[in-house]
Amino acid sequence: MPTVKDFKSRLEQKTLHVNRVIAQLLDSIDDMHPRITEAMRYTLEAPGKRIRAAMILFCCELIAGKTNKDAEIAAAAIEMVHTYSLIHDDLPAMDDDDFRRGRPSCHKQFDEATAILAGDALLTFPFELLAKKVSDPATAIRLIVSLASAAGGAGMVGGQMADFLAENEKGSLKLLKYIHTNKTSKMFEAACTMGAIVGGATKSQLKHLADYGLKIGLGFQIADDILDVTAATEHLGKTAGKDAAQGKLTYPALVGLEKSKKLAEKITAEAIAALKIFGKNADTLRQLAHVMLERTK
Amino acid sequence: MPTVKDFKSRLEQKTLHVNRVIAQLLDSIDDMHPRITEAMRYTLEAPGKRIRAAMILFCCELIAGKTNKDAEIAAAAIEMVHTYSLIHDDLPAMDDDDFRRGRPSCHKQFDEATAILAGDALLTFPFELLAKKVSDPATAIRLIVSLASAAGGAGMVGGQMADFLAENEKGSLKLLKYIHTNKTSKMFEAACTMGAIVGGATKSQLKHLADYGLKIGLGFQIADDILDVTAATEHLGKTAGKDAAQGKLTYPALVGLEKSKKLAEKITAEAIAALKIFGKNADTLRQLAHVMLERTK
Repeated sequence: MPTVKDFKSRLEQKTLHVNRVIAQLLDSIDDMHPRITEAMRYTLEAPGKRIRAAMILFCCELIAGKTNKDAEIAAAAIEMVHTYSLIHDDLPAMDDDDFRRGRPSCHKQFDEATAILAGDALLTFPFELLAKKVSDPATAIRLIVSLASAAGGAGMVGGQMADFLAENEKGSLKLLKYIHTNKTSKMFEAACTMGAIVGGATKSQLKHLADYGLKIGLGFQIADDILDVTAATEHLGKTAGKDAAQGKLTYPALVGLEKSKKLAEKITAEAIAALKIFGKNADTLRQLAHVMLERTK
Repeated sequence: MPTVKDFKSRLEQKTLHVNRVIAQLLDSIDDMHPRITEAMRYTLEAPGKRIRAAMILFCCELIAGKTNKDAEIAAAAIEMVHTYSLIHDDLPAMDDDDFRRGRPSCHKQFDEATAILAGDALLTFPFELLAKKVSDPATAIRLIVSLASAAGGAGMVGGQMADFLAENEKGSLKLLKYIHTNKTSKMFEAACTMGAIVGGATKSQLKHLADYGLKIGLGFQIADDILDVTAATEHLGKTAGKDAAQGKLTYPALVGLEKSKKLAEKITAEAIAALKIFGKNADTLRQLAHVMLERTK
């Protein structure tokens, strides 16, 4: 098992790797409206851990022994989709957040119209990218299906809708699980699936990685809910305490902080259990699970 | 040459055909958030001529002699992307329009958050659809590239950005052409390209159809500008006279009504000239150009 320090340095390498790929891709865009490119770049290049993208690279490495060009394209694509969702989620009609990744959110830096359009462009471009740059059409198609189904109305967008409707409502655990699974976990599941695909995984390997991703995603979101209660704004890079102020349905709000921490632990253990078939090779993914949980303590 | 009446009946058949395909696709969705499906359905099933979708079917027929399943999927996909753009374009931060296709626009019928999210879902779903349902991966990839590049920051979204920035600015013909080409024409070009692809067109056939599409699109947008000045709200299904009220950069605003009509005529003639290589088989597309121009008279 790598130490936490080893793991953090590996994650940092992946973050830098993804940042380079994204910067190159942005530099190669010369035909978009300059303000769209500027707003895309502003939000996409803000500091972030690139956790979804890193998971694609880690999963590809686990399966194939190393990353490859297709993994890089997939990693950039998922970060773009994730970033578009942040831009739209921060809009006044949605979560109305003025800060993101430690900077003014896109609509504060530019204006609402630009944020809506830059989000739309950031949602469109990754599909073009996957279709144009992935090495063969069959692989590209599988990646597009994974990403689009995780991001759309039966995934992230559906979860955001449920999240919005649940504000100030007395929610149930069932509804909360629906929200977290769709809003967050399915994109983590997609990251692991996409990493498995570009690594050339067997059906069984893909299934186990997808299961790990779904569970890690749920743990990640519970941890996020906890951090919103326990951390300070400057540490989060976004406004802390907003969930409660907005009457959001969260684990701490529904079951309390302590039980939320226990749930995060349980789901992390389940995520790690899904990695059993990979033996020691999956130690990096195990450490990722531990580090994510660590955030809540 | 078919008569205008013949053509209108053919177009109507295509509209009904596309409506059936869209209704079937919407009925087959069972895993999206119900409010997302409801808002998607509300806007997508509002009366519309489905002109972009019809162009895909017409182009496929021209090349292959008949339409096929891939053409149907492509037609539904382009209508979804077009409809998402209407939903986002009507938002208060954008064009702020309360009516669309003769009904309250999506954010008036639901709310802004739902409209943003339903638009996002409508932009995501067509890529999933093309990736999942088109008969072979290589064709699906070509369709996705056409659609995404026409819709994104180097196409429709870029045009909307420029359109937004040009409000109440003294514009130039060059800027106006950029706006119209990107905001409108590239999606028409994509429709013809996608129809050519699913029909199995040669490179030369595809190039001529794309050229026709780009020009028809420009003519269509000039006609739209003219209609905004000359038609009544109940006839348009959206608020008339809004362009002038919002200080939009349009052909009538820049060069006057008469010169705008002349330009629409000129571009229609150019569109028709691009069809020369197809001989009589392209008469339906020629008639489409005439009927579009007819709207301005």
